Amino acid sequence: MSNPKNIPTRVLPGFMELLPADQIIFERMKDSIRHSYEEFGFIPLETPIIERAEVLLSKAGGETERQIYQFTRGDNQLALRFDLTVPLARYVSEHFNELAFPFRRYHIGTVYRGERPQKGRFREFYQCDIDIVGHNELSLVNDAEILSVIYTTLKNLGYQDFTVRINNRKVLSGLMASLGIQERSTEVLREIDKLEKIGPGNVRADLAEIGIPPASIDRILQFASIRGQPAEVIAGLRRLELGNDLYETGVAELEEVVRLVEYLGVPPHNFTIDLSIARGLDYYTGTVYETILNDHPEFGSVCSGGRYDNLAGQFTEQHLPGVGISMGLTRMFDQLREAGVIQPGPSTVAQVLVIPMLTDLKIPLEVATRLRSAGVRTEVYFSEAKMKKKMAYASKLGIPYVVIIGEDEVAAGVFSLKDLRTGEQVQIGFDQLLQTVIEHANS
Amino acid sequence: MSNPKNIPTRVLPGFMELLPADQIIFERMKDSIRHSYEEFGFIPLETPIIERAEVLLSKAGGETERQIYQFTRGDNQLALRFDLTVPLARYVSEHFNELAFPFRRYHIGTVYRGERPQKGRFREFYQCDIDIVGHNELSLVNDAEILSVIYTTLKNLGYQDFTVRINNRKVLSGLMASLGIQERSTEVLREIDKLEKIGPGNVRADLAEIGIPPASIDRILQFASIRGQPAEVIAGLRRLELGNDLYETGVAELEEVVRLVEYLGVPPHNFTIDLSIARGLDYYTGTVYETILNDHPEFGSVCSGGRYDNLAGQFTEQHLPGVGISMGLTRMFDQLREAGVIQPGPSTVAQVLVIPMLTDLKIPLEVATRLRSAGVRTEVYFSEAKMKKKMAYASKLGIPYVVIIGEDEVAAGVFSLKDLRTGEQVQIGFDQLLQTVIEHANS
Repeated sequence: MSNPKNIPTRVLPGFMELLPADQIIFERMKDSIRHSYEEFGFIPLETPIIERAEVLLSKAGGETERQIYQFTRGDNQLALRFDLTVPLARYVSEHFNELAFPFRRYHIGTVYRGERPQKGRFREFYQCDIDIVGHNELSLVNDAEILSVIYTTLKNLGYQDFTVRINNRKVLSGLMASLGIQERSTEVLREIDKLEKIGPGNVRADLAEIGIPPASIDRILQFASIRGQPAEVIAGLRRLELGNDLYETGVAELEEVVRLVEYLGVPPHNFTIDLSIARGLDYYTGTVYETILNDHPEFGSVCSGGRYDNLAGQFTEQHLPGVGISMGLTRMFDQLREAGVIQPGPSTVAQVLVIPMLTDLKIPLEVATRLRSAGVRTEVYFSEAKMKKKMAYASKLGIPYVVIIGEDEVAAGVFSLKDLRTGEQVQIGFDQLLQTVIEHANS
Repeated sequence: MSNPKNIPTRVLPGFMELLPADQIIFERMKDSIRHSYEEFGFIPLETPIIERAEVLLSKAGGETERQIYQFTRGDNQLALRFDLTVPLARYVSEHFNELAFPFRRYHIGTVYRGERPQKGRFREFYQCDIDIVGHNELSLVNDAEILSVIYTTLKNLGYQDFTVRINNRKVLSGLMASLGIQERSTEVLREIDKLEKIGPGNVRADLAEIGIPPASIDRILQFASIRGQPAEVIAGLRRLELGNDLYETGVAELEEVVRLVEYLGVPPHNFTIDLSIARGLDYYTGTVYETILNDHPEFGSVCSGGRYDNLAGQFTEQHLPGVGISMGLTRMFDQLREAGVIQPGPSTVAQVLVIPMLTDLKIPLEVATRLRSAGVRTEVYFSEAKMKKKMAYASKLGIPYVVIIGEDEVAAGVFSLKDLRTGEQVQIGFDQLLQTVIEHANS
């Protein structure tokens, strides 16, 4: 494409820009997620994309901090949000007196991270978050409900074969405390995480190398080998008899969440207890969640989160425990498309293309307006062109129905309705036409 | 509110942040606009909020350029989009070969302008744009359709009494050319615009002061005094007999658009020809639109746009004429709220709050899941609290129905359904409960 001023028109690296067919699917996914969240009564929330840098930096650190887009405007240090949780913390702190608790909100919006661009990593991406924030206390039942939200959301998106993996940070922390190795938790958890890949022999060697005593290694490997149905895992955890209160609380919480999740109708094959899940973020303190599409474990977790003790300690002295999850929609969409799970459909939302074959547009325009009033998404082809070109336009976009209106049709009081998917063409009156389109066009 | 680190939690000046009740209305308006746009077959489009600075600066100038948020990242000069039109121009140039023309897209998204904060001006605000972009040609019928989109969109938003004012830049340019004062157009148009406020005597004096010859002033005032129904305005324009081709073309286009708009079913009281409308942007070349809510002319135009000769001359040598409009949703929402037209409704989307009065949550959770599966937005109150506090929570949020489930209800196989709007409470079975809620809860 020639370009008069040589300005690059390609989107910046690390930014996703979709063609219409993909965009339409992306929008449908956003809608589906939103409706799933609203089914549970979560309230929509939006916060600005630009925040004071000190607000965002209050929680960021390390890698994230380097990735934040920051800039100066007048006297203000500004930044683009890198997640939806820090803005939620600021929002709840600011509007504390105006909100009812537990505060249940969802937020579907873009966040910004100046990461090194690489496959599957985006600098602008959608997060679809829900959080339930309590004041001073928040019942454990919410932890079960969040799992039900994940299940419902993925099911409504059309997925059947996925597993929500849960764990409880109290179990992990209690285990470490009972062995007196709390300060080594991160390293130990990293080793546990490698178990499936490298096997218990290698994990034993690695743990010994970082100085964990043999008796503790036995306990850790015993812990990490607990597998099975939730009831079996719970029984296995109990059998360890670690005699640590935090651990016991964690086990009891896991057991209770599993029981409640069954009441909520989540099928047993869609969730499991996975003791290797810890989640990177420091602030999770109870239930943690990850979600795997079983046909695509290589995607990693498509929906993750957990229970935290205090949402907004940096902004308020109110004690705000919560539980929440985030779905990385942009990344998941990209992965599903790459894997061929998402196949592009039509490049339009139109259900009907009206093609006038008359000089006087009165009837075609009236028909278009009547179709629209009846809820049919209708476009009219206005350009002068050969019939073939007009049909090609409809085909290229994937509009299912074409209505041809010429002198003959007007004289006979009928319309030619062509189904472009079958090639079938009929002459019918308006009411029949409307009925056919409503019943058979893509919804 | 005490704040441990003294980080300001107020949103930045010039940014809108809504409480739930307002946010819910805002979301509903966004949805309504989107559905109206889709009724006409417009395709959703999203582009990144961050663009190369040179892309955005290719069209910006003067005031706008100073308002652009710009920053450097690595070697890149980046900027936040200040409208949705320049990104559209880049998108169409980049993806020209992959798109079908006419390309009809809508884009509802935020844009960023670092304006001095003042009442009714925002630094982050939603624009709701539609554009129809042709390749080499674009039928005038599209200009009429755009007016029909404006009408439908406002009507679907619940407004009845509004006027879409149209004009045609060719009429104005032709008038100026016929008087030999093309290069004074801007000043002259500014004077015409003041006519209603200061009267013809003062306009005459002002025009004389800037050096317009008396004969030309007569013509201009004669032009500007043309009022009435569209047919009368057209006749009045013809009577001027300016003998300028551009002018005649403009008059013919206005006449044709008016005729087609009637075919499209736009009621005559919802549009008018207003010869004082010129629109600031330089690139409009034909039909221009402004829209006034008649009860609130002080809002200014809530939906504006026009026909342009070439969308993307800075990015491509393809000739891309188009016509489009933009609705400034954030500003309009703010104005409607200030004027009391928008009254906050419920602070939730939930239709039912289930209140368990049992230790065993099996039945309450099952009921919640069944209600959700039937499409009822349902929340369960999990916190330990007195009944009064639970009811207060439902009332504060504005949840219309409460379902109370205690030992008695479970034993009798019924549920207590309370309508919080009427205070009425009944004991009914699940099917009746579901039917009542679906029929009478806010949708």
